[in-house]
Amino acid sequence: MLTLHDNLGSGNAYKVRLLLAQLEIPFQRIEYDVTKGETRTEAFLALNPNGRIPLLVFEDGRTLAESDAILFHFAEGTPYLPADRFDRALVLQWMFFEQYSHEPYIAVARYWRHYIWDQVDGDADMERALAEKMERGYQALAVMEQHLDGRDFFVGDAYSVADIALYAYTHVADEGGFELSGYPAIRRWLDRVADQPRHVLISEDTFA
Amino acid sequence: MLTLHDNLGSGNAYKVRLLLAQLEIPFQRIEYDVTKGETRTEAFLALNPNGRIPLLVFEDGRTLAESDAILFHFAEGTPYLPADRFDRALVLQWMFFEQYSHEPYIAVARYWRHYIWDQVDGDADMERALAEKMERGYQALAVMEQHLDGRDFFVGDAYSVADIALYAYTHVADEGGFELSGYPAIRRWLDRVADQPRHVLISEDTFA
Repeated sequence: MLTLHDNLGSGNAYKVRLLLAQLEIPFQRIEYDVTKGETRTEAFLALNPNGRIPLLVFEDGRTLAESDAILFHFAEGTPYLPADRFDRALVLQWMFFEQYSHEPYIAVARYWRHYIWDQVDGDADMERALAEKMERGYQALAVMEQHLDGRDFFVGDAYSVADIALYAYTHVADEGGFELSGYPAIRRWLDRVADQPRHVLISEDTFA
Repeated sequence: MLTLHDNLGSGNAYKVRLLLAQLEIPFQRIEYDVTKGETRTEAFLALNPNGRIPLLVFEDGRTLAESDAILFHFAEGTPYLPADRFDRALVLQWMFFEQYSHEPYIAVARYWRHYIWDQVDGDADMERALAEKMERGYQALAVMEQHLDGRDFFVGDAYSVADIALYAYTHVADEGGFELSGYPAIRRWLDRVADQPRHVLISEDTFA
């Protein structure tokens, strides 16, 4: 059976849980508390030298890191990845957008506010850094809003792993202090994603 | 013909020029000076709402952004992308590593030092930010060094777009102040990449 090295609060790990649930692929989970450095132990670094969850370990011991690489791999040959070659490139385009222009701002703002703010509240450097995260996060949301205006999903006419990649942190952006009321196309898209068959919630212990 | 919206100093744009040169696919270039905001004009944002080069425009007007998505797309079905499905997932794993854990530190440190340092030299906030970029950049180099020890290339036994993605900014890391003398496996790998057929240099105006 697959083993997912996981964290139930992580949007990156949630992407993998959501796709595997929708594909009805069973897996076991090992939970890590990233706030306690549990992904930086010698044992974990032997599995993923980059010290990050999610990490997927196959039954034969092979490992695969990086949430969007895991999504693409499991989606190949399923309805969650377009058959058309150029559409697959667009899926990757949106996944790289997510990891470079979205996650470092929206996920990090959420992590700071939601998980560690009691330790850093009042720190002027953190306040300034958070303001920058918010500004860049809103820029990413503006790009998404423009693209989704008149579209149901990110690529083509169908729900794909591009949507899963971007949904993961967008649907909890409020926990980072982002206000989505001015982004109606994004809000309609969030509802469409949540309405997909076999959808699971971010903290749902799937296949438990 | 393909049109590459380009910048000759950008490692991300260089990835595309290098692969297209190696595949012997002709293209025309349009050069942008990112330090002058040329990728934030209304005309460019109409092509790429995320305001970044490289952007590839196909003859029929379709556009594809994100350097590593462009690499993966053109490499499909060529020797530059492994045929094995799991190896393709590993190529993506390293590409996402590059965009999340490598480029934001090594490329940004290089951009600051090499292109805009005369404007920010002596700014204490920038000095602190640069020190953090250096620390995280060296962490990425350590992950690469460990992986390359005993290996010729990042995935399998062959040069692939994973190598191109990581070569782009690693081979000019010295311009960001990184010292590679303590990374012998990386240095041997840089030489192997530069020895590949039809290799071009970062600022080479290919197909000019």
